[in-house]
Amino acid sequence: MDSTTSSISDDRPDDATDAIDTASDGATEWTRARCEALDAADPLAVHRARFRLPAGLIYLDGNSLGPLPESTQARVASVIADEWGDGLIGSWNSAGWIHLPARVGAKIAGLVGAHDDEVVAADSTSVNLFKVLAAALRLRPDRRTILSERGNFPTDLYIAQGLVATLGQGYKLALVERDEIESVLASDTVGPDVAVTLLTQVDYRLGSRLDMVRVTARAHEAGALAIWDLAHSAGAFPVDLNGARADFAVGCGYKYLNGGPGAPAFLFVAREHQDRFSQPLSGWMGHANPFDFEPEYRPAPGVSRYLCGTPSVLALSALDEGLDVLAATHAQGGLAALERKAAMLTQCFIDLIEESCAEFGLSLVTPREARLRGNQVSFSMDNGDQAYAVVQALIARGVVGDFRAPGILRFGFAPIYLRLVDAWDAAEQLAEVLQTREWDQPRYLQRHAVT
Amino acid sequence: MDSTTSSISDDRPDDATDAIDTASDGATEWTRARCEALDAADPLAVHRARFRLPAGLIYLDGNSLGPLPESTQARVASVIADEWGDGLIGSWNSAGWIHLPARVGAKIAGLVGAHDDEVVAADSTSVNLFKVLAAALRLRPDRRTILSERGNFPTDLYIAQGLVATLGQGYKLALVERDEIESVLASDTVGPDVAVTLLTQVDYRLGSRLDMVRVTARAHEAGALAIWDLAHSAGAFPVDLNGARADFAVGCGYKYLNGGPGAPAFLFVAREHQDRFSQPLSGWMGHANPFDFEPEYRPAPGVSRYLCGTPSVLALSALDEGLDVLAATHAQGGLAALERKAAMLTQCFIDLIEESCAEFGLSLVTPREARLRGNQVSFSMDNGDQAYAVVQALIARGVVGDFRAPGILRFGFAPIYLRLVDAWDAAEQLAEVLQTREWDQPRYLQRHAVT
Repeated sequence: MDSTTSSISDDRPDDATDAIDTASDGATEWTRARCEALDAADPLAVHRARFRLPAGLIYLDGNSLGPLPESTQARVASVIADEWGDGLIGSWNSAGWIHLPARVGAKIAGLVGAHDDEVVAADSTSVNLFKVLAAALRLRPDRRTILSERGNFPTDLYIAQGLVATLGQGYKLALVERDEIESVLASDTVGPDVAVTLLTQVDYRLGSRLDMVRVTARAHEAGALAIWDLAHSAGAFPVDLNGARADFAVGCGYKYLNGGPGAPAFLFVAREHQDRFSQPLSGWMGHANPFDFEPEYRPAPGVSRYLCGTPSVLALSALDEGLDVLAATHAQGGLAALERKAAMLTQCFIDLIEESCAEFGLSLVTPREARLRGNQVSFSMDNGDQAYAVVQALIARGVVGDFRAPGILRFGFAPIYLRLVDAWDAAEQLAEVLQTREWDQPRYLQRHAVT
Repeated sequence: MDSTTSSISDDRPDDATDAIDTASDGATEWTRARCEALDAADPLAVHRARFRLPAGLIYLDGNSLGPLPESTQARVASVIADEWGDGLIGSWNSAGWIHLPARVGAKIAGLVGAHDDEVVAADSTSVNLFKVLAAALRLRPDRRTILSERGNFPTDLYIAQGLVATLGQGYKLALVERDEIESVLASDTVGPDVAVTLLTQVDYRLGSRLDMVRVTARAHEAGALAIWDLAHSAGAFPVDLNGARADFAVGCGYKYLNGGPGAPAFLFVAREHQDRFSQPLSGWMGHANPFDFEPEYRPAPGVSRYLCGTPSVLALSALDEGLDVLAATHAQGGLAALERKAAMLTQCFIDLIEESCAEFGLSLVTPREARLRGNQVSFSMDNGDQAYAVVQALIARGVVGDFRAPGILRFGFAPIYLRLVDAWDAAEQLAEVLQTREWDQPRYLQRHAVT
């Protein structure tokens, strides 16, 4: 199998280095019967019932919004009725609300190779990125460049632009292509001025996965720090932030962590950096002693200084429940097992689409080698309007994928609740949409505000 | 009645200028029977049943965390099961999630004298303050001073300190006493350098209310802009931001708006300022077209550019429900009627405590004139540990008040669910706690993390 680019590779921990891109039955041809047999033998299959998945729907958009864990309804109901309703203000102590950002953060830490005291859940990914980006720049006061990639998720770039505009003083955001990052870091022109790299491990459109170990090492060699956006990584496959010596990270609570729409995000700060600087969003929840109501900000020790205002208890509780559902996969091998299953799911879908849809102008943009991609398969079409309409027509058939401008069809394969038959059936539906040209209707071609 | 300080006065709209600090029955002495009679005649009494109030509890801490509206449970359950569970990603369109920050903001606008398009609900008060403070400084590029008061709520000061440290370039936070604000603005020394005033209308410890019209005018005369923190104002009494010509405001969703623990906050930007500058937290939800995924930030027109990351739909929905419950008081006169009732509740409590507790060292720190205070009564005690223990002993008796360092006992009187008999009974319990000295026990004297 070919790698689409030399700059992306695997960063899985050692215990996951067995081939993740082949099914265990040794067969090479996909049939629906084979999919059913592999599903029947899948130890992770028990977890599907933990999610509310509408009948007849194949949900391949868990990388945009994870589905509802069945237990979240009761959990939030209890938080509302018992903790808020009956416990009222006292629940900040008695129900431990005050510790939720750290407690939820510690659960996320276990998914991303961090110590429990290196992660907090708080705010949005965008807000958290502002905090860690500002902190990183303070750690490299003689440098002025934030290095990112042109295709990074836009909010990452927008936040960097907002910070640069706020700081002035020659700060700038340098954007390069994804496969130029390492060479730019090594260059004599840009490299010595790079304070920090701001990279998303799994590209939201292409589904390609950067080698966190290698790119972080290149950043450090250039004297820069490394911030990682784990939006499409956390909960999807094993991440090892400390193994990669990452400096900072942020990530999303509503994709593979199944925390609900707009769930709180998280941030990671390596221990060595935590107490060196405070961050600009110095709200009272990051104060050393918020309930002493001192007029001077004194940052809390450790990662807690990256908290800002009062967090939403309802939102954090829903996220906490999503994390517990994910943690329940531990008995079946946890993230390493989920990664292997996702590799099979994505491989099956790639193979089937390339076999059945070659004539319709779909080009695979996701790496063919499983270890070089996230739990996602993306195809591009030259005609963006057509790509949009194909996704809409597919949704009308009950297969929920995602469109991303300019012309990307994106399919997320969350292995905790998806089956190989879902990949099979989705591929069949997509082939039919293309064969019948049923996408070519005004109702599918007209774009909505959100896709 | 005396005013405690000349710098605070009334900013109610004209239709609320009938005396708000006398009961309608013309009597002057408080008896429990009189309280019951006034409660029985209170048109607002119907709204008490809309809240879950644990039996036997008198909740005087709605200015810290508002109680649960009974309808919120079903509302959030429906958002979780129907919108998230069944609607999945499509609910960003079909359930209107994408419009929640503006829709909820418009409901808040109606409470604070703003146009619908001047308010959004988003993030925390702290994060929102960072946005508007940074924007205000950009509007006054030749000035370097943020003027606030030493007793402002700490997170307001911490955020200003964080912004000042981020900007450098001579920016500073000047802190004065609450009654010095106007004279400092008028001074030749500090006044000409003040870019913006950062003031909380109702002091969180004292319960005193600043005259928003007058102080804003003084700020403008000095060439400065005015930011108002409405944490203890919004939903408590009529606020008229545009009548006062306020420039920016922020406020809290979990106090008088009853949006739940850590509910999203809101921010207000006067129309004239909206399109002049963007703000530093330029996340994708504030982009002109977030789903075009452009690499360059282009701020959305209007107040939407003050949005940042993806908002919590669960948290916003709970806040939306709290606002609907508040809006239901419209038939009984809405905020103006609530303000009159709160004036009675607080007056009753002040009169009773001053009558029964004079010998125990409690000093009223809240203004005696109703129009000069929020919906809050605060007493100070010289011994902070004793004040803390008194509040704890009172909570053990089922009367939930609040302690605020160094030695403040704080009681919030949210008129939408409280009765005069609650004020009467609370006063009686407080008198008994002091008379019996039952507060003088280790279990009450030992402080918790959060009070």
